[in-house]
Amino acid sequence: MDERLKKQMDFALEIDKEKNIFRQTHLSGYGRNENDAEHAWHMSIMAYLLKEYANEEVDIARVMIMCLIHDIVEIDAGDTYAYDEEGLKTQKAREDAAKERIFSLLPADQKEELIAIFDEFEACETPESKFAHSMDNIQPLMLNNSNNGADWKAHGVDAKTVYGRHIKTKLGSEKLYELADEILKENIKKGNLNGS
Amino acid sequence: MDERLKKQMDFALEIDKEKNIFRQTHLSGYGRNENDAEHAWHMSIMAYLLKEYANEEVDIARVMIMCLIHDIVEIDAGDTYAYDEEGLKTQKAREDAAKERIFSLLPADQKEELIAIFDEFEACETPESKFAHSMDNIQPLMLNNSNNGADWKAHGVDAKTVYGRHIKTKLGSEKLYELADEILKENIKKGNLNGS
Repeated sequence: MDERLKKQMDFALEIDKEKNIFRQTHLSGYGRNENDAEHAWHMSIMAYLLKEYANEEVDIARVMIMCLIHDIVEIDAGDTYAYDEEGLKTQKAREDAAKERIFSLLPADQKEELIAIFDEFEACETPESKFAHSMDNIQPLMLNNSNNGADWKAHGVDAKTVYGRHIKTKLGSEKLYELADEILKENIKKGNLNGS
Repeated sequence: MDERLKKQMDFALEIDKEKNIFRQTHLSGYGRNENDAEHAWHMSIMAYLLKEYANEEVDIARVMIMCLIHDIVEIDAGDTYAYDEEGLKTQKAREDAAKERIFSLLPADQKEELIAIFDEFEACETPESKFAHSMDNIQPLMLNNSNNGADWKAHGVDAKTVYGRHIKTKLGSEKLYELADEILKENIKKGNLNGS
């Protein structure tokens, strides 16, 4: 096997570990916790299906690969729950070190390419990254809603905090923000989410 | 929520069930069995990274969505192990019924679009579908090799059968077929795969 292909395969094998990084979100039917690879798979299909609702025209291949790799750093850094204030303070340093280690397994040109895609997602400034963030929010919202808000209830999350997160949903898609708003209002009404 | 978006979200929620369809392949480090959503996530990233080895130029967005959805019918039909001769006899009828039910959740235009992509994968005639098949074979080969051939050993699979499967790897990528051949030869040598 030549050196370039060996590096690509080493990276491909390393990212298998993402299947062991579990999130706070539970599968539909209040199943087990979801892992990062499943979340990324789901987001990427949803991006393809819902692309007509992106605020700006997007390069869908770029959105899809962005969704697929956006959590790879969590192999080392772990999942930081969106509403864990302590964890959020150290998240960047942990994820930067992970990013360097993991993407360095690739040939130099692909390391640069994937880090650029990863950083683009984090910066959330391009049409593709904004729409990928809409997916990152809508996918767990959909699951949590299907489970009658169980994940919000378990963490005692309030509506204001969740709405704060969905600012990025709106940057990517006004239409999907309207959907998020509709779902959140229903959950506040049902008492699944603290709306006071 | 309007009717079109409702259908799209119904489909998105339904496919969550793919995370509960487990395959014969085990995760690296001889972890638990892998599920279909994880397998599809992994294949899709590998397609993006390894596209330079496709025999013919491919539309990578089409390869990626093809990889992501190619096992959706297994939500109803279950996973049929590649070397299960009895299961393979009824596989098509079970998967056709599942295809109709699951994709019918979508708006008509997207039902048609996704079934076309699904059927294209199955037919394995276009550059995109051939390359997606290379990924469908190389991804579990990589995991199984990392586990010292444990899945082959568990099922007593012989090399001839495995080589038969990898005919499709070669249709998509001569280079990745060479890699598969190298890995298979090593595993025969180690006694992980019956080469007689």
